[in-house]
Amino acid sequence: MSDCIFCKIIAGEIPSVKVYEDEHVYAFMDIMPLSKGHTLLIPKTHRPYVYDMTPDEAAQLFSVAPKIASAIKETFEPEGMNLLNNNGPKAGQSVFHFHLHFIPRYGSSDGFGAKWMTKEKEFTTEKIQELAEQVKTKLASEA
Amino acid sequence: MSDCIFCKIIAGEIPSVKVYEDEHVYAFMDIMPLSKGHTLLIPKTHRPYVYDMTPDEAAQLFSVAPKIASAIKETFEPEGMNLLNNNGPKAGQSVFHFHLHFIPRYGSSDGFGAKWMTKEKEFTTEKIQELAEQVKTKLASEA
Repeated sequence: MSDCIFCKIIAGEIPSVKVYEDEHVYAFMDIMPLSKGHTLLIPKTHRPYVYDMTPDEAAQLFSVAPKIASAIKETFEPEGMNLLNNNGPKAGQSVFHFHLHFIPRYGSSDGFGAKWMTKEKEFTTEKIQELAEQVKTKLASEA
Repeated sequence: MSDCIFCKIIAGEIPSVKVYEDEHVYAFMDIMPLSKGHTLLIPKTHRPYVYDMTPDEAAQLFSVAPKIASAIKETFEPEGMNLLNNNGPKAGQSVFHFHLHFIPRYGSSDGFGAKWMTKEKEFTTEKIQELAEQVKTKLASEA
């Protein structure tokens, strides 16, 4: 897409610090890293959100995730790693070309953290079962 | 793996609220949801971390992510969605069988949030290029 910064990076019109490229995907260092080794993996085809990807595009992208994550891990020896994909501004997305963050974690010195507040009191087992039925119905209608 | 809670879920030895299953993967509702529709997608083969998955296993898993994310989105109409995979206790992992969280976001009422503190002052362009070279060397050595 002509005005997409990530499409321009793939096309070489904007510089990036590439770590990996193949026929389908492109991986480069985040220029505003949260931690040492913070990397982005993107599909070469412009897709704003995970919802827009075909099964093949999703498969091609994630098939290289283990080797990229392993290379980052072996190079920098972080204490852990988060893989994160944000869909929509309210989920933290700022560039609207699908990207998967690889965020190596180094304890309190890194820039990422997750607020994790379970809502199990709101969601009884019965309520969860009811919600699951709705998702299953939707999945079946699209099959 | 005999003492893995997610392997027991796949085997039907522990109950779960399933939303999707195929030859390779299993998706079910998180029993301690952060928000309405919080779902987990796991490979049927026991792999503790993303590092351990084969390219095919990773591809098979993520190939269904778009349809699962879309079904959750269309069912509950959240404001956004985060896909998150935690590797290692320091990254928030508590069950050591790879799982990808689908966390629909509903503004301030949901239980997930990301602390996002860029460290761009620590990481100059030159420093980022140097780090990328290390990752590329590692990737090349494993090719």
